[in-house]
Amino acid sequence: MAVGLCAPAKLYPVDGVRLGTACAGVRVPDRKDLVVLELASGAHCAAVFTQNVFSAAPVLVARQHLAKEQARYLVINTGYANAGTGEKGVADALACCQALAGLTECSQAQVLPFSTGIIGEPLPVDVITAGLPEALAEMTADGWQAAAEGIMTTDTLPKGVSRQLELNGQTVTVTGIAKGAGMIRPNMATMLAFVATDLSIAPALLEQILAQAVGASFNRISVDGDTSTNDACVLVATGLSDAAALTETSEHFAAVSVAIEQVCLELAQAIIRDGEGATKFLTVQVTGGGSEDECCQVARGIAQSPLVKTACFGSDPNWGRILAAIGNADVADLDIHRVALSINGVPVIQDGMPAKGYTEAEGAREMAREEIRLEVALGRGQAAYHLWTCDLSYDYVRINADYRT
Amino acid sequence: MAVGLCAPAKLYPVDGVRLGTACAGVRVPDRKDLVVLELASGAHCAAVFTQNVFSAAPVLVARQHLAKEQARYLVINTGYANAGTGEKGVADALACCQALAGLTECSQAQVLPFSTGIIGEPLPVDVITAGLPEALAEMTADGWQAAAEGIMTTDTLPKGVSRQLELNGQTVTVTGIAKGAGMIRPNMATMLAFVATDLSIAPALLEQILAQAVGASFNRISVDGDTSTNDACVLVATGLSDAAALTETSEHFAAVSVAIEQVCLELAQAIIRDGEGATKFLTVQVTGGGSEDECCQVARGIAQSPLVKTACFGSDPNWGRILAAIGNADVADLDIHRVALSINGVPVIQDGMPAKGYTEAEGAREMAREEIRLEVALGRGQAAYHLWTCDLSYDYVRINADYRT
Repeated sequence: MAVGLCAPAKLYPVDGVRLGTACAGVRVPDRKDLVVLELASGAHCAAVFTQNVFSAAPVLVARQHLAKEQARYLVINTGYANAGTGEKGVADALACCQALAGLTECSQAQVLPFSTGIIGEPLPVDVITAGLPEALAEMTADGWQAAAEGIMTTDTLPKGVSRQLELNGQTVTVTGIAKGAGMIRPNMATMLAFVATDLSIAPALLEQILAQAVGASFNRISVDGDTSTNDACVLVATGLSDAAALTETSEHFAAVSVAIEQVCLELAQAIIRDGEGATKFLTVQVTGGGSEDECCQVARGIAQSPLVKTACFGSDPNWGRILAAIGNADVADLDIHRVALSINGVPVIQDGMPAKGYTEAEGAREMAREEIRLEVALGRGQAAYHLWTCDLSYDYVRINADYRT
Repeated sequence: MAVGLCAPAKLYPVDGVRLGTACAGVRVPDRKDLVVLELASGAHCAAVFTQNVFSAAPVLVARQHLAKEQARYLVINTGYANAGTGEKGVADALACCQALAGLTECSQAQVLPFSTGIIGEPLPVDVITAGLPEALAEMTADGWQAAAEGIMTTDTLPKGVSRQLELNGQTVTVTGIAKGAGMIRPNMATMLAFVATDLSIAPALLEQILAQAVGASFNRISVDGDTSTNDACVLVATGLSDAAALTETSEHFAAVSVAIEQVCLELAQAIIRDGEGATKFLTVQVTGGGSEDECCQVARGIAQSPLVKTACFGSDPNWGRILAAIGNADVADLDIHRVALSINGVPVIQDGMPAKGYTEAEGAREMAREEIRLEVALGRGQAAYHLWTCDLSYDYVRINADYRT
């Protein structure tokens, strides 16, 4: 029941990246649940991880390995998150890396592990390592689609996005995959995303581009306000394209940054469109703030209000709940007489009061759409912020009350 | 479907308070929806109101009137909140006060107005004022039960609590009523509470006792993390008991404060037990913190996590979600290796890891109970905080998606 989302059409291969996916039976039989990405020698990796203090074991290990070596392999399992598993969890994550290293003749520290699934139960290392040969045997440059399926948990559709650019006659590709779909909030959610380009980008610049792209995409989505222990977003630059290496002064710097950001943005929005139980895709745009921070506070307050989210589910133009969420956002000295609200461009509130000519029928018509844009103007400055979220439905409760049973 | 809650048994009259309840047809016909409280001349009133910037018109008016005059009447309507209604809303609230003043020969400023219901639609002043004579005709010292019913919105049961104390042979009564049941979060929620005692308590002391009682009760409950525009809690001391006036040095000061606090606490917990869609009553206790603030942050993080709340609804001992909520609470330098968690006294996590001997079956047994106590020890200090919340069920979504239709 994803909102305006289809399975990805064509995902272009990225020179220097091969992907293999296996049905290892990590937690349930007969589904793709183990993915290996192989990166060409010389590829650079940048990554951002969850801000949750309870970082999962694979996050701890991946951070360490990234600091030590150039990564050659990424190994991703679903079923178990390997979080809340203490020292044994770290040993288990390392054992998976070691097993893959043994099969591929790289070092343990050249493997980055990623896990998603149930927190607190031990990782079935034997099952995962037994599945690695199948994943390696399936390894292909065309493996993006299968990998997008292999990292799904409660996702209903695989998520993948591809872009190609012509840079001075050379084709450059950016392809990414991601999974959602709950425990999602700005600052890395239960989401994993892997994006690669064949362009050559030096590590420091790669990190800068990733930070910018994540700030404009994955860090602006919220399903339920919960931040997972396992989030990660990896950006790979293999450098195998014939295009010249990217630098900050490159003619095409902006075009490449935008392409990477757009891939991240489309993946992030796909996560929301496929949010647990989502029936509506909401854009919350706050303008006229004294600072970006206060706009962000207001946007989050709206996006995380269960009352606003259930009203969207019910197609109820209950703007009072939106005003109440704005009023709760702790913006100092907010003058409510300057606040305006529109829904899909229909003015609903002006100067803190129902807009002239606004009718409930208009509001109901807009709230019944699958895509709802809530625009709030605070009338106190020039700053702005926007983010994306989904509604709160029966199915969100069903999925999360029954997750493990 | 309230959790462990019955309609109040006996509510003792408070000398100096009479209550009248009418079916005025404010929004729907044939239900009690208009309540008038009459206070004896000389009664003192203290009140706390919502922190929401979008305070409703009746809140603005009640604040002003309280500052001007000793209140003689409280008038409460359900159906419409008279919030987001601008200057017309203030005029409407004043018109209701004026109508009651005209019927009772007091001044407009001696009437405090309270409204609860839908935000943003105009108050039907004519309907309310037409109902006032019926409410006045019903006026009786035994009217607490009917008044508790008259202030209900989505509440499934009326909420009232009574206590009597003997002070040097004199009986003193404390009786209160409240309504919930959604848009509930610490710092005054969509809740109204009216508590009265016949003891004599001077205004400054009355305010101090109210602040203390509210801090320990109404400000520690959360249904959905949303704070309403209309919250109010009023404490009245009529001074008509034969007991000596209370002062800070009174022999019985502690006993009286505790009695008032207990009435508030029981009312606050009743609001949670009758929270929208609630099937479980949760106590979240955080100990071992470096400060009360950080304990409060952790407790709120847990209490407001949709994933924790749906797990409670599903009786799923999914402690990983509780750890994730702790990890998201922004406690600086939290050492996860010192964190402990128990559910109804069963140790689940010790030193950041599953407790020795803990079994999923034990956890499932405790999570299946109607009353769940989540105790978190942070292992970094002596501070503590606790609050109460409920689970997140299908019915919460149903009630809030369909609220107005």
